[in-house]
Amino acid sequence: MPKSSIVKLGLLQHACVADPKANLAKALSLAEKAAKQGAQIICTQEMFRSQYFCQSEDHDFFGLAEPIPNGPSTVAFQKLAKKHGVVVIASLFEKRASGLYHNTAVIIDADGSVLGVYRKMHIPDDPLFYEKFYFTPGDTGFRAWDTKFGRIGVCVCWDQWYPEAARLTAMQGAEILFYPTAIGWHPKEKAEYGVNQHGAWETIQRSHAVANGCYVAAINRVGHEIIDGVGGDGLEFWGQSFVAGTSGQILAKASTDKEEIMIVPVDLSKVDVTRTHWPFLRDRRIDAYSNLTKRFIDQTA
Amino acid sequence: MPKSSIVKLGLLQHACVADPKANLAKALSLAEKAAKQGAQIICTQEMFRSQYFCQSEDHDFFGLAEPIPNGPSTVAFQKLAKKHGVVVIASLFEKRASGLYHNTAVIIDADGSVLGVYRKMHIPDDPLFYEKFYFTPGDTGFRAWDTKFGRIGVCVCWDQWYPEAARLTAMQGAEILFYPTAIGWHPKEKAEYGVNQHGAWETIQRSHAVANGCYVAAINRVGHEIIDGVGGDGLEFWGQSFVAGTSGQILAKASTDKEEIMIVPVDLSKVDVTRTHWPFLRDRRIDAYSNLTKRFIDQTA
Repeated sequence: MPKSSIVKLGLLQHACVADPKANLAKALSLAEKAAKQGAQIICTQEMFRSQYFCQSEDHDFFGLAEPIPNGPSTVAFQKLAKKHGVVVIASLFEKRASGLYHNTAVIIDADGSVLGVYRKMHIPDDPLFYEKFYFTPGDTGFRAWDTKFGRIGVCVCWDQWYPEAARLTAMQGAEILFYPTAIGWHPKEKAEYGVNQHGAWETIQRSHAVANGCYVAAINRVGHEIIDGVGGDGLEFWGQSFVAGTSGQILAKASTDKEEIMIVPVDLSKVDVTRTHWPFLRDRRIDAYSNLTKRFIDQTA
Repeated sequence: MPKSSIVKLGLLQHACVADPKANLAKALSLAEKAAKQGAQIICTQEMFRSQYFCQSEDHDFFGLAEPIPNGPSTVAFQKLAKKHGVVVIASLFEKRASGLYHNTAVIIDADGSVLGVYRKMHIPDDPLFYEKFYFTPGDTGFRAWDTKFGRIGVCVCWDQWYPEAARLTAMQGAEILFYPTAIGWHPKEKAEYGVNQHGAWETIQRSHAVANGCYVAAINRVGHEIIDGVGGDGLEFWGQSFVAGTSGQILAKASTDKEEIMIVPVDLSKVDVTRTHWPFLRDRRIDAYSNLTKRFIDQTA
């Protein structure tokens, strides 16, 4: 447990280029700046080391993956974490074995040790978000870790739409839920649907803070990415990384299009205060929830 | 199934007085007006027939309860439903047996028949919301019904904070979730916490629409109620009944302090459109949700 209940989060929102080394260098540079600005738990956006290659199904892109923990990104962030005494959550494209790839977050404690990994459990597949082609669904289940600065949980992007994921993570004691993300608009849809799409995204994540009386931090990329060899209109990532307080209120929010280092202090003592004043965990009807493990409750069954 | 996919909802937001007969007369009058304005599914606020007596623990208030279906409110609304060909959801204080009382919604189809009841599953207990004294937790589980105008689900107030309740109702095919509600501010807390409290309430219910790609209708009362014999500062009900669309967007919203009949058309064909464009139901990890039936996932276990 931290000596103070105040913890400073560092969220890294940035754009990506085609060269993975340049992206890693940028993320490390931003993380270093965040640490110098007082951040204690630093989180990258989803798969910060590359452009969002899932815009197409291309076997060549498997070459972007790296092992964990013995890959370049994990090693570099371990070094940074130890040097600055900060916790790091890095979202990576993991090569676990030949033909077995995951969308994985690695959690590094402030001494540079790897606490564990979380492999994205919910995998989307939609136009220009062809993740089911690349990422085997995670087999880690939902997890939480005691870091030097507090007990945290990490889910990744599509997981953010599932109250079940947030609940199961919070039920392990996580007081801050991190969501590395890569989400944006199809340029042709933006005018008609853009506001609703972003609103749904922000609302559902704020609701996880409400339902669980915890903090939520969502970290998204910026930039309009049209992938070489794929073309088309690409995706316009909507940025707007944010931190929600224990009542779901927005504590800090980034722009739609600028690279930003967000330094956001949160007070972990408010988790218990909120949960005793709004005692949702007290009253869950666990005797009546068993059907949540069903796909649907068919009327003909 | 309705011939048209457009269904008009009628939400009745009003104040209550000490006399139950006057409240029933008002609710019937508002329902009649709503029907004449084209409403097809009409929903009352929570326990519209009385002031919010749970501000104290007083055995006399059990006298406010009535049986279902053979009580005055159910009978009156059955008559109204049949006369106007409308579906009615009425939130009542139910006397089921001596010493067994529930916070219950009765669902009446457009021919006046009772389709069933839902007994509030999650029961709060907080200063001035002493519901655990009065209401036995429901044993109905979560439910959905085919009405003349669409398949609907009903939860009640405190249920609204539980993603599990919304999910289990939607998983039974409900395309509209109704939440009769009685929630307001403690006057002394309003200045400091009021915005966050209301924001959390609206956010969590909008999130049920997002997570499940369905409509959500929340119906709350207005008025500052100081109960005879209880006194104190009472509760200032915050009104702001609303309907959220299938992406959680606010389609219509009432005032904080005025009695209103809201007539809100919704298009049920958008449920499938939303769910195929944002296919959350497709990707639920039901193999990893079994711990949702636990109280907590203890690290020492």
